[in-house]
Amino acid sequence: MPSTPNCAEPAKRARAFGLACGRLKTGPRNAITDVAGVRVAHVTLDDGAIQTGVTALLPHAGNLYRDKPVAAAEVLNGFGKSVGLMQVEELGALETPILLTNTLSVGTCATALVRHAIAANPDIGRSTATVNPLVMECNDGPLNDIQALAVTEADAAAALAAALSEADGAEVAVGSVGAGRGMSCFGFKGGIGTSSRRLKLDGKRHHLGVLVLANFGRPGELCLPDGRRVAPPAKDDAPEKGSVIVIAATDVPLDHRQLRRVIRRAGVGLARVGSFWGHGSGDIALGFTTANRIDHDERADILALRMVNEHRIDRLFEAMADATQEAVLDALAAATPVVGRDGATRPCLSDLLNFGSTP
Amino acid sequence: MPSTPNCAEPAKRARAFGLACGRLKTGPRNAITDVAGVRVAHVTLDDGAIQTGVTALLPHAGNLYRDKPVAAAEVLNGFGKSVGLMQVEELGALETPILLTNTLSVGTCATALVRHAIAANPDIGRSTATVNPLVMECNDGPLNDIQALAVTEADAAAALAAALSEADGAEVAVGSVGAGRGMSCFGFKGGIGTSSRRLKLDGKRHHLGVLVLANFGRPGELCLPDGRRVAPPAKDDAPEKGSVIVIAATDVPLDHRQLRRVIRRAGVGLARVGSFWGHGSGDIALGFTTANRIDHDERADILALRMVNEHRIDRLFEAMADATQEAVLDALAAATPVVGRDGATRPCLSDLLNFGSTP
Amino acid sequence: MPSTPNCAEPAKRARAFGLACGRLKTGPRNAITDVAGVRVAHVTLDDGAIQTGVTALLPHAGNLYRDKPVAAAEVLNGFGKSVGLMQVEELGALETPILLTNTLSVGTCATALVRHAIAANPDIGRSTATVNPLVMECNDGPLNDIQALAVTEADAAAALAAALSEADGAEVAVGSVGAGRGMSCFGFKGGIGTSSRRLKLDGKRHHLGVLVLANFGRPGELCLPDGRRVAPPAKDDAPEKGSVIVIAATDVPLDHRQLRRVIRRAGVGLARVGSFWGHGSGDIALGFTTANRIDHDERADILALRMVNEHRIDRLFEAMADATQEAVLDALAAATPVVGRDGATRPCLSDLLNFGSTP
Amino acid sequence: MPSTPNCAEPAKRARAFGLACGRLKTGPRNAITDVAGVRVAHVTLDDGAIQTGVTALLPHAGNLYRDKPVAAAEVLNGFGKSVGLMQVEELGALETPILLTNTLSVGTCATALVRHAIAANPDIGRSTATVNPLVMECNDGPLNDIQALAVTEADAAAALAAALSEADGAEVAVGSVGAGRGMSCFGFKGGIGTSSRRLKLDGKRHHLGVLVLANFGRPGELCLPDGRRVAPPAKDDAPEKGSVIVIAATDVPLDHRQLRRVIRRAGVGLARVGSFWGHGSGDIALGFTTANRIDHDERADILALRMVNEHRIDRLFEAMADATQEAVLDALAAATPVVGRDGATRPCLSDLLNFGSTP
Repeated sequence: MPSTPNCAEPAKRARAFGLACGRLKTGPRNAITDVAGVRVAHVTLDDGAIQTGVTALLPHAGNLYRDKPVAAAEVLNGFGKSVGLMQVEELGALETPILLTNTLSVGTCATALVRHAIAANPDIGRSTATVNPLVMECNDGPLNDIQALAVTEADAAAALAAALSEADGAEVAVGSVGAGRGMSCFGFKGGIGTSSRRLKLDGKRHHLGVLVLANFGRPGELCLPDGRRVAPPAKDDAPEKGSVIVIAATDVPLDHRQLRRVIRRAGVGLARVGSFWGHGSGDIALGFTTANRIDHDERADILALRMVNEHRIDRLFEAMADATQEAVLDALAAATPVVGRDGATRPCLSDLLNFGSTP
Repeated sequence: MPSTPNCAEPAKRARAFGLACGRLKTGPRNAITDVAGVRVAHVTLDDGAIQTGVTALLPHAGNLYRDKPVAAAEVLNGFGKSVGLMQVEELGALETPILLTNTLSVGTCATALVRHAIAANPDIGRSTATVNPLVMECNDGPLNDIQALAVTEADAAAALAAALSEADGAEVAVGSVGAGRGMSCFGFKGGIGTSSRRLKLDGKRHHLGVLVLANFGRPGELCLPDGRRVAPPAKDDAPEKGSVIVIAATDVPLDHRQLRRVIRRAGVGLARVGSFWGHGSGDIALGFTTANRIDHDERADILALRMVNEHRIDRLFEAMADATQEAVLDALAAATPVVGRDGATRPCLSDLLNFGSTP
Repeated sequence: MPSTPNCAEPAKRARAFGLACGRLKTGPRNAITDVAGVRVAHVTLDDGAIQTGVTALLPHAGNLYRDKPVAAAEVLNGFGKSVGLMQVEELGALETPILLTNTLSVGTCATALVRHAIAANPDIGRSTATVNPLVMECNDGPLNDIQALAVTEADAAAALAAALSEADGAEVAVGSVGAGRGMSCFGFKGGIGTSSRRLKLDGKRHHLGVLVLANFGRPGELCLPDGRRVAPPAKDDAPEKGSVIVIAATDVPLDHRQLRRVIRRAGVGLARVGSFWGHGSGDIALGFTTANRIDHDERADILALRMVNEHRIDRLFEAMADATQEAVLDALAAATPVVGRDGATRPCLSDLLNFGSTP
Repeated sequence: MPSTPNCAEPAKRARAFGLACGRLKTGPRNAITDVAGVRVAHVTLDDGAIQTGVTALLPHAGNLYRDKPVAAAEVLNGFGKSVGLMQVEELGALETPILLTNTLSVGTCATALVRHAIAANPDIGRSTATVNPLVMECNDGPLNDIQALAVTEADAAAALAAALSEADGAEVAVGSVGAGRGMSCFGFKGGIGTSSRRLKLDGKRHHLGVLVLANFGRPGELCLPDGRRVAPPAKDDAPEKGSVIVIAATDVPLDHRQLRRVIRRAGVGLARVGSFWGHGSGDIALGFTTANRIDHDERADILALRMVNEHRIDRLFEAMADATQEAVLDALAAATPVVGRDGATRPCLSDLLNFGSTP
């Protein structure tokens, strides 16, 4: 199975088409990697009916099991198969990278994360606890032969290694890459998108970044920031079997409760682009802050952490809503054509936007 | 304290201004009373700095304690003081009318509901359980002297009596009435709004209706269905201290879990009108179905109930999102001017819509 | 309506009967007031069929609206009518004293808390937000004429004033006092009980204290710490319509998520004394820490807080389970006879324990 | 890797040692298979340091994806890695068998369930939705070389096939079998246990059955039904890294909300045997009812289901608490010696009970 490396030149982004959301400023790359430490890489499987992949996201480049970012999960619509969320909610922290993939490859990716964690932490399941792999997914069945379970542990390991080799603050490859390879969104080609917002707190610059795996939305219901609705040229009449995963990263210090409040606003961004969080769509948000970390080997009984003044949290809510909305548009804008199972394709939003026909 | 009866002539509704949401058909009155049995009435307090009131909503005209509709509650943003939601979530049913009022009058209205229930059910707290009053609220402090705690038990009782005397399927008075008297919304005068959607299931006509108490949204962020943003002429610079209550009624049979899924989509409607569920806004949804009832005195051990085929639930999600969105616009469209505490006022959206200046 | 002040001499406590739970040491008073700052007082209504009251608990003696302890709520069984929990869960803090009373007096006590907060904070509902009153309840209907709604705002205000006048670290009156006046527990006379546990963290002494309003449990199912079951002499055949409120206070720094984990273990203590969290019993836990406070007028954007090392949290779980179990036994041990509505009474556990008949 | 079939002769059960819980009658086998249709089988890996396995539980012998039992999940303490619970909570139904295994084999078992579902339902991920595998786990690291990830997809498939070949109402192999092979409980050898209770509703006989994977509890804190505490002869000083999975089956018709209320009482049973739901223990309950089924291919818009009269639900609460408690004791009573990684062993409770030394 050939693996495609990350695209050499980044796909055209949403802002290149004039698609911008909200009034807040973006970070320098308008990407989740505007949060220092975050790394993203993809392994893309592109071989006939196999159009799928793995996306690896590292909250930081260190040993996540030893140095756990405070995290939270929010289930907007739980028709999904993500794993690891329960422990994130109980302990308020994550302890592995986050892998994104297709629905039926979750087990394989979870096992890959387990092996990855054991390799770095030989005490797992021996003298210390086990490990909670974090894998999130969407169903790329319409384009990908999902029954083939084509993603291997080696693919997942390659994505993890690729992410680790990324430079801090690197551009994020978006569109039909990694887990986004076979995804569809509002009848168009979907995939990976990202966006970020800048915030100033106590005089210092902070960021909130979002990465989405966009595979949701009924054809005809996509809503652009100016209110126009955009439909694909030929309406696919298959029932929607979508989902969307929203990952939020920030360097604003938040406790678990605050983080959950923030990422809940992913639902606002999804509503703005035209979704009502459909029944069949597993709409899940996961967030973490790099500004509060839990040391697995901490010896002190009492720890210090920081949180944002709740009177300022609307800034984060707004950033979350805006960045989620724009990250979805980014996935749509950047998506390049894919010919999948039985020759299935999805039109690219960029074609409509380039020629200005509908919008 | 003078009490104003329901307006003789209904206020102008959202659709009179061309404000309509979604593609589904409305019920005959485009109101929550399109769900058979539902009754709504208001007591409005209008006396100088006292600009507040009570709105009573009866899920049906019978003894609710004896004949409890299946119900569910969903907290979108829990910065609010509604009472009764915990038991609704545990038992999946409501057992009193729903009262809406200002934040600081919740205790008084709860006591009024307790007395109302005891009067009809003398066994309460004697040979049977106690009763769970259901009161929901928004903060009308900017226009109303909320510290006066002006709403009395008699006002609440009058609203309940007025609702009971309503005919089945009556029009709902909307705008600056009842609990909506002193409310503000996106910098405009807010208040009570309603809308409904029609659904066909197994060949039969059903309805989902929504009533909102709209008191949320930052000036400048109101978004009309065509995507245009509307700001009040002079921006009020007071920080938002809003909230919004969304009540959903349906005659579609749903179990508690399904009902909660449906009413969660209130959040979509609120996002569409321009909210990101702000920190200071208690955004709460409560729903009930008249098609599944719990008999307090049931003797059989096993009961029958009905539920919708989950493959069809998107219709209800869409209806809920659309009706919530439109009910908020309805509240804004119907709101008439109020001069409140210290002469405070809010512009009426209808003035802008009538003269077509901004939109 | 005569009001009985706090008992001059404290009732006999659980340990006086050899009823002790677990292996951890108690605080000096074995009471919730072992957490510095916590104050408790009661107003007891004792007049024929009126056998009820109010218990006020202050997390600290200052202005709680200005200086809010981090707090959490956990609903073990939500068949109850407590108010204020939703906001505690959203914001992770409380902002008023906690009032305990009978089920149908919740509205009155909520209004009293609103007035109490406005009196100290004239900006409420004017230039700042409204206030979230926190009232918790059990149904004392079997002994008290609960339909009389006998508790007045003045009673609630008197309880608040009495609590404020308590010295720091004072003994807590327990048994048939305050809200506990008319309560029943496992067929015995119930009421107010308390207990505490001592913890050492980073070499410093800390405490976790519990206060319960015990009104739950089926006759015959009470289980003493040594495993013996104790039944009342004559079994009351009325169906259980109980509830139990568990308030936990600690000076261990915890964030909201940790606090919720800790107070969830109230359920363990209740199970140990013989409850299976019966359907009709509103079993609710509320907890706060005095070691993390939110300043309502905070100007900094980023705040510091502390939390316990999660590897040590089992100590708090154990303390919570043990102190809850013992606080229930304390309520039973301390309860003195009450003759209520229609001459109804409940046997006192202390009579059995004194004479050693059953256990 | 040799696989051990189910034991030919059943292990000695808890009642053989006089360990019985509560006052309700058991079903004929005192096992989860007293609920008609339920099947259980194990694949046990017993090879030096590899002491682990898979347990398969079928809610019924048909195609679960096509005929989904109503189900619910309850997280008592979410320090665990079970997968599939989110969708169960959203949709209120399960659609695959339940596999139990060790923590690090969850991914492999999830993939096995996916393949198993696709084999029976070739439309998965093609013309219909994907599938939600349900895998629950405990950490058997102290006895098993968990880092070996020894469980294969073939092992999982074998367990599924073995369960399908079981007769309806067969005995359940308990003790150190299947997923229970390497488990520890209160310092003793743990594993699989089961118990059931009989209920009469509307004159008809019903059952609630429980199966546990018991791997929790601190040495010295095990509490027998008569209140006596039992400690293992030599205290293992390793920190607890346990967990317990509680599966409940019933043929009483319940809706999702009721089922969740019922299975929550697993926590009562666990508390009674001496647990306070320790920090490191993933304590998870999953329940289903065979009396309400969702047809995946249902064409009607409105469906009928049945639920229990909530006034009778205490019977189910009591059954759940009692059966959970007894199932844990059953696991302990039935556990046979295992020599695991580095020669590690756990004493068997049966040895103490047989010789009557401590209890």
